[in-house]
Amino acid sequence: MKKICVVVTARPSYSRIKTALTAIQKHPKLELQLVIAGSALLGRYGNAIDFIEKDGFEIAEKVFMVLEGENPTSMAKTTGLGVMELANVFYKLQPDAVVTIADRFETIATSIAASYQNIPLIHIQGGEVTGNIDEKVRHANTKLADLHLVASEDAKERVLKMGENPEMVFNTGCPSIDLAKEIKENPKLDFNPIEKYGGVGEVIDWKNGYLVVMQHPVTTEYTSARQDVLKTLEAIHELNIPTFWFWPNVDAGSDGTSNGIRYFRETVKPKNIHFFKNMEPNDFLRLLVNSKCLVGNSSVGIRECSYLGVPVVNIGTRQNRRQRGSNVLDTIYDKNEIIKAIENRISSKSIVSSTIYGDGNSGEMIADVLAETNLTFHKTIMY
Amino acid sequence: MKKICVVVTARPSYSRIKTALTAIQKHPKLELQLVIAGSALLGRYGNAIDFIEKDGFEIAEKVFMVLEGENPTSMAKTTGLGVMELANVFYKLQPDAVVTIADRFETIATSIAASYQNIPLIHIQGGEVTGNIDEKVRHANTKLADLHLVASEDAKERVLKMGENPEMVFNTGCPSIDLAKEIKENPKLDFNPIEKYGGVGEVIDWKNGYLVVMQHPVTTEYTSARQDVLKTLEAIHELNIPTFWFWPNVDAGSDGTSNGIRYFRETVKPKNIHFFKNMEPNDFLRLLVNSKCLVGNSSVGIRECSYLGVPVVNIGTRQNRRQRGSNVLDTIYDKNEIIKAIENRISSKSIVSSTIYGDGNSGEMIADVLAETNLTFHKTIMY
Amino acid sequence: MKKICVVVTARPSYSRIKTALTAIQKHPKLELQLVIAGSALLGRYGNAIDFIEKDGFEIAEKVFMVLEGENPTSMAKTTGLGVMELANVFYKLQPDAVVTIADRFETIATSIAASYQNIPLIHIQGGEVTGNIDEKVRHANTKLADLHLVASEDAKERVLKMGENPEMVFNTGCPSIDLAKEIKENPKLDFNPIEKYGGVGEVIDWKNGYLVVMQHPVTTEYTSARQDVLKTLEAIHELNIPTFWFWPNVDAGSDGTSNGIRYFRETVKPKNIHFFKNMEPNDFLRLLVNSKCLVGNSSVGIRECSYLGVPVVNIGTRQNRRQRGSNVLDTIYDKNEIIKAIENRISSKSIVSSTIYGDGNSGEMIADVLAETNLTFHKTIMY
Amino acid sequence: MKKICVVVTARPSYSRIKTALTAIQKHPKLELQLVIAGSALLGRYGNAIDFIEKDGFEIAEKVFMVLEGENPTSMAKTTGLGVMELANVFYKLQPDAVVTIADRFETIATSIAASYQNIPLIHIQGGEVTGNIDEKVRHANTKLADLHLVASEDAKERVLKMGENPEMVFNTGCPSIDLAKEIKENPKLDFNPIEKYGGVGEVIDWKNGYLVVMQHPVTTEYTSARQDVLKTLEAIHELNIPTFWFWPNVDAGSDGTSNGIRYFRETVKPKNIHFFKNMEPNDFLRLLVNSKCLVGNSSVGIRECSYLGVPVVNIGTRQNRRQRGSNVLDTIYDKNEIIKAIENRISSKSIVSSTIYGDGNSGEMIADVLAETNLTFHKTIMY
Repeated sequence: MKKICVVVTARPSYSRIKTALTAIQKHPKLELQLVIAGSALLGRYGNAIDFIEKDGFEIAEKVFMVLEGENPTSMAKTTGLGVMELANVFYKLQPDAVVTIADRFETIATSIAASYQNIPLIHIQGGEVTGNIDEKVRHANTKLADLHLVASEDAKERVLKMGENPEMVFNTGCPSIDLAKEIKENPKLDFNPIEKYGGVGEVIDWKNGYLVVMQHPVTTEYTSARQDVLKTLEAIHELNIPTFWFWPNVDAGSDGTSNGIRYFRETVKPKNIHFFKNMEPNDFLRLLVNSKCLVGNSSVGIRECSYLGVPVVNIGTRQNRRQRGSNVLDTIYDKNEIIKAIENRISSKSIVSSTIYGDGNSGEMIADVLAETNLTFHKTIMY
Repeated sequence: MKKICVVVTARPSYSRIKTALTAIQKHPKLELQLVIAGSALLGRYGNAIDFIEKDGFEIAEKVFMVLEGENPTSMAKTTGLGVMELANVFYKLQPDAVVTIADRFETIATSIAASYQNIPLIHIQGGEVTGNIDEKVRHANTKLADLHLVASEDAKERVLKMGENPEMVFNTGCPSIDLAKEIKENPKLDFNPIEKYGGVGEVIDWKNGYLVVMQHPVTTEYTSARQDVLKTLEAIHELNIPTFWFWPNVDAGSDGTSNGIRYFRETVKPKNIHFFKNMEPNDFLRLLVNSKCLVGNSSVGIRECSYLGVPVVNIGTRQNRRQRGSNVLDTIYDKNEIIKAIENRISSKSIVSSTIYGDGNSGEMIADVLAETNLTFHKTIMY
Repeated sequence: MKKICVVVTARPSYSRIKTALTAIQKHPKLELQLVIAGSALLGRYGNAIDFIEKDGFEIAEKVFMVLEGENPTSMAKTTGLGVMELANVFYKLQPDAVVTIADRFETIATSIAASYQNIPLIHIQGGEVTGNIDEKVRHANTKLADLHLVASEDAKERVLKMGENPEMVFNTGCPSIDLAKEIKENPKLDFNPIEKYGGVGEVIDWKNGYLVVMQHPVTTEYTSARQDVLKTLEAIHELNIPTFWFWPNVDAGSDGTSNGIRYFRETVKPKNIHFFKNMEPNDFLRLLVNSKCLVGNSSVGIRECSYLGVPVVNIGTRQNRRQRGSNVLDTIYDKNEIIKAIENRISSKSIVSSTIYGDGNSGEMIADVLAETNLTFHKTIMY
Repeated sequence: MKKICVVVTARPSYSRIKTALTAIQKHPKLELQLVIAGSALLGRYGNAIDFIEKDGFEIAEKVFMVLEGENPTSMAKTTGLGVMELANVFYKLQPDAVVTIADRFETIATSIAASYQNIPLIHIQGGEVTGNIDEKVRHANTKLADLHLVASEDAKERVLKMGENPEMVFNTGCPSIDLAKEIKENPKLDFNPIEKYGGVGEVIDWKNGYLVVMQHPVTTEYTSARQDVLKTLEAIHELNIPTFWFWPNVDAGSDGTSNGIRYFRETVKPKNIHFFKNMEPNDFLRLLVNSKCLVGNSSVGIRECSYLGVPVVNIGTRQNRRQRGSNVLDTIYDKNEIIKAIENRISSKSIVSSTIYGDGNSGEMIADVLAETNLTFHKTIMY
């Protein structure tokens, strides 16, 4: 039995790995050691831990490591503390391999704590391209990792170009598509979002169609986070379409974004927007698949929505050069441009689904690769 | 004036940057902020701080961050603590750019603390190839860095292949060659090593020729460090040529190497070996240029010795695929093979100098690039 | 010039030391090194740093050290991180003495970082008695400290009984009384609280008299914090007197208290309560001196209000055996008891001012003691 | 079953608790959770962990927390790191009570991590008096602790005077006396120290009587540690009696002491001294009971030797006002005074055993008190 230790540090990462966790747990040759860390433990960022426990996963260790401040200095210190804490955790759990997910700033803590202790490191979802500190972190994770499970052909090629061993790079697709597949097969919106999740703001009438907005601060430009979110708020307010708006997750600058939202709510009191903090992943996907359009800069727009065929207005540079389907229309932080883009998406007839990020069996593919690949912690660049 | 913050974390790194420090200090457009951290502050690892202060550099901050243990877990925790401490330091110094040097395990702490705080990161001596955790750390540093000052054409090509922007990659050579140049121009051994540096072991007669040995543990194989060093000790003992042996610097496993040396000294009491803990860089180069051969796995053999034309026996995988001159003969950890290799080098007539790693003005080139390049903390992979 | 380093870690501590800071700054034999740390730097806890800078103090160092979580584990880890960070700060500032204030959980970090580095430690406001972790922390600070500046005769006796050297224990009163004195001399409420500070909740009519409530969670009972605050909310709601309510400062359990407040606001929507996050200390005192009664468990009720002659209803165990004036009526967490106690205080004719905690020149007394006392870091228990 | 978590942070602490560990393990109402931390894990300080495992104890957690540097700053930072790490450990183990032992600098980390998490804290061996940072740490531990198990009547009175609850203070004696009792009953020196433990220095002829020296640096005077140890070395050298000398344990300044010893060895090459790094506790006691005299400043001289009736020369202030038997003669750091004192002790006929620190069943008494006492984490000073 190979012991596979997976570290989940944030709410969105959980959706990116959930079906793989299930598949690892079920696999006869694998044993799952699940570590929940960072903002995934905190109420302020949506209590991902509650969803995870409700889904029946056993938690091997919890790691409190987030420093208050929500600025670049506290991001760095959170990461440093994460290295120290996760070094202890891996020393104790003695896993045969550690999995680090994607490119959030604190994921490099997992990578360092594992690789420095000579534990084979597996990086999920490397090789993509965005435009800020995530970009640096993702590729640094690639260079620390021994095995790469990427989510698209485009990403695979990029990891290979960076000098990784072709025998250790697999396109498994993204487990988030597995969840999307279930929803696609049975897309009915079977709950009342406001009744089930509360939230704040107006009780909007969403039954005749609605928008969903999810906009995160872009770390390296965090002073402008407040200004950026105000553009989107103004556009949504002017459009006057019923809208569900999700608060951003933890990041330097979430203060800027959150402040912008709070300021707009108190001064403008928009009648067409209802705000949520969090939602169970399945419910969120169901909400998306029934929406007119997703607006913002979330990677969900690039990934799950491409598979689901949901129209997306992607604003700004956060998703940068990530491969995208025809469902996505890119625009900039300008009220009128955002309005125009949303109108375009809503009226478009030709939006189709794509399998760029997998066809819905990614979790099992990941478990199989983990079970069958000979893991090692030695590597050398190929050129 | 651009404020350039350079972080030196270990004795050997100082030689790799010294002439650049001087050039930055003198440059009219640059201001030096020198941070000394990690083992460079500790007596057990040769008190690099003393040499640095003696050379007249002003220290902006000292960072104590080394955890006891000398095992992979303490390496990871030292790195995590380094991130936390250096985050504070950069927050306070507010540099315009931070320089991280080469590939020691703790150098990634500098990289994270700078890049996460949106400070342009400059990586010195990326793009080389070796064979253990250094390999992973070096390339991860490259992916976190915005500007790359590499030491050879070979390294430059590799950094470009990894997707870095050609406008931000410069082959400046290695500042250690600048020091070597001074020595080459005036190579006389003008001091008595044992009188000046004490050390332990036999007082050998070095006046008719001697070997120098410097062997570091290879981190990912640290349990075998003790066994490896014993092979070299046996070979040197059997050859019975007067030898100066340098203790290894801090690393997981230095215990293994140090234990091996101590054990051999106490049981075999070799009459032909004298042991040093440390030496001023210039004196060390002077010792090398007058030696018959350098034995071990130090990168000095690959770099400075190639410029100086000193014969080198390089043992094991530590230097791996680093570009090397014709002065180097590679061998394995086997007593007889080491003896054969040393005999080959000592008797070779054809060893010539090379400028693979620069021609002696690297420090000034580095300062000029820093002054003239437009520094930024945004980057995106080129493909 | 003696360098006196004062560490302020929270908003309420600042009021307890402000006039002493001014007096140290002005004293010809003293130099102030002001360190702002912990929640005093964070927006979520009232941005004390902004008031401090506005008051014209120069900040020598800022120390980010608060871990997210607001539970006992994060309190402990915040303290540990504080020790590490403050050790660096004192190493760099090289003060002749360090001042730690009162008994918040993180103040022991200051005490350890100073005393372990052989820097004389001065403890302000030891010797009092309360009823939770503060109680342990306060007396542990006393045992780590070399000089004790206490705020009442009662406290002085207690510190002496604990075995401290009588030559090193001074009753200087509390600097918060100095601020109260200024207000007492000129008590007019010269601003409109809601216009100046915003806040949330109903715009109450406060012109004909109002209550002030300030209730903090009691750390060792943090699961009951929510329930406790609901009792007070119910009592205030039923009384239906216009009320200004202040959110609690950072502590494990503030989530409980804050949740209770938020829940009550949303479900009951009390028409007579307006909520503030923070207020400038002088404005806060002015608000108090013009109020009918202060309700809750804040030490302001015991101290400043005793000097100001403001009626106080003190609920629960938080202030425990702290010496109190006749202005204070103690009660328990029971709606009816709280109502009765408030009615008693409001109707009482006989509330007079007392000087238990000083007569208004505490700041200068503190500076004088610091200047004249021979500071040392050696001590031995007196019995 | 009450879960009792005991934290051992150093070699000497283990002897102070060993029989209590055994008794806790055997007690039907108690479950032992043994945490080994700090220098007890490190080879440089005698690998206490090896002895503990050899004695058959199961280790619940290992905590690496020692920062390199051996100066006051690294002592403080080690303690801060200890708080962070032990907070995790207690969060995970969820003990019903935590035991902190005596007064080493890092023991306060255990106290904070437990008390801040509302876990009842038990302090072993409070109430004694010494003369440096240990003095402050010990009494601060007392003020953080809920239950006090002291080692002498004198100590008990002092803890009570400090305001602790008489129902929570027990004189259990010191478990180290339990070990001494076994040896006293069978005192034959049944091993050859040099054969069994190696060590360095001359092979002395100890069969006709020998001295034992154990001298630790006194933290607050660490610059004079080197000078102090040289006085003792000179005295022992001049006396020319065969001597076993033990290296100091980890402390700021051990560098000073260790340097002094190394310097003396290399320059003077004393023919009558053999040096050991460590010895199993039982062997050490056997060595003591057969010696002419113990010299230095170890608390073993005050405790075990008083029970064993071994003559002791106690030098300097380290043991200060600790209660002592008639076996101890105090002196100062002066070569001639030390010589005189040793000669006095060696020739004294009247040295008798005493039971100040217990009569040999301390371990069981401790376990019984732990089992029978109602543990709580609430306390208030008694006056």
